[in-house]
Amino acid sequence: MNEEMKNCSYCAEGELLNAFGIKIAELPMSKVILFREQSHRGRVIVACKKHVDDITMLTREERQQYLEDVNHVAETLHRLFHPDKINFGAYGDTMHHLHFHLVPKYRDGYEWGGVFAMNPGQVRLTDAEYQELVSLIVGEL
Amino acid sequence: MNEEMKNCSYCAEGELLNAFGIKIAELPMSKVILFREQSHRGRVIVACKKHVDDITMLTREERQQYLEDVNHVAETLHRLFHPDKINFGAYGDTMHHLHFHLVPKYRDGYEWGGVFAMNPGQVRLTDAEYQELVSLIVGEL
Repeated sequence: MNEEMKNCSYCAEGELLNAFGIKIAELPMSKVILFREQSHRGRVIVACKKHVDDITMLTREERQQYLEDVNHVAETLHRLFHPDKINFGAYGDTMHHLHFHLVPKYRDGYEWGGVFAMNPGQVRLTDAEYQELVSLIVGEL
Repeated sequence: MNEEMKNCSYCAEGELLNAFGIKIAELPMSKVILFREQSHRGRVIVACKKHVDDITMLTREERQQYLEDVNHVAETLHRLFHPDKINFGAYGDTMHHLHFHLVPKYRDGYEWGGVFAMNPGQVRLTDAEYQELVSLIVGEL
């Protein structure tokens, strides 16, 4: 792991990742992370296992597997939370690790009809509530 | 085309689409649209040819072809504009047509380090400038 990767939340995990997320599962080409900020119930991150800037830097096979992972998680969110829409966003301008935010949106709920904030910083859960949410999602993945 | 699709910018095209974009190409599973608002030089939309809410509603084959289309356009943007990052975002809470915004970001430029606005409403080009940009992208697609 090079210096950049040691400072990458998705590669190094540990405290860097725990600051904003809880790793809940690995899929063939990705890590699934519950986003601690839960203004949008069920919001997660699907981070690629490879430390690359975006999808163009994967091989076709890696890219398609990554998409299937994202799709599998999205299907799980639909089944569990019945959002009216799921938003998909990949930003991370200042880091170099491909990851998509999957953000369930609920009609007339928070940020409905607009983009979603990178981190609204409003809704944090208790440890017990995080554990319950993690178990719920992991049980369906 | 049902009533919903007649009111969908991406299905009906025409004036609905022209209000915010210029269709510049079709790929196997998508329509490529130059976003008129050019705060981020090279910003485009890749809209799925099917009127579905998100990737989970496509077959695996459709989804993978759509991703390859998105990837092809992103590679083209990298080649032409050399952005420091491309953001990918799919929102559209109140419509029902899968599309990704591909937003080239430039270090220390507009909205660098954050999400991108749905439509900043700041930079419009002249018809001649749009035509030039369209020719540039189409020539590389």
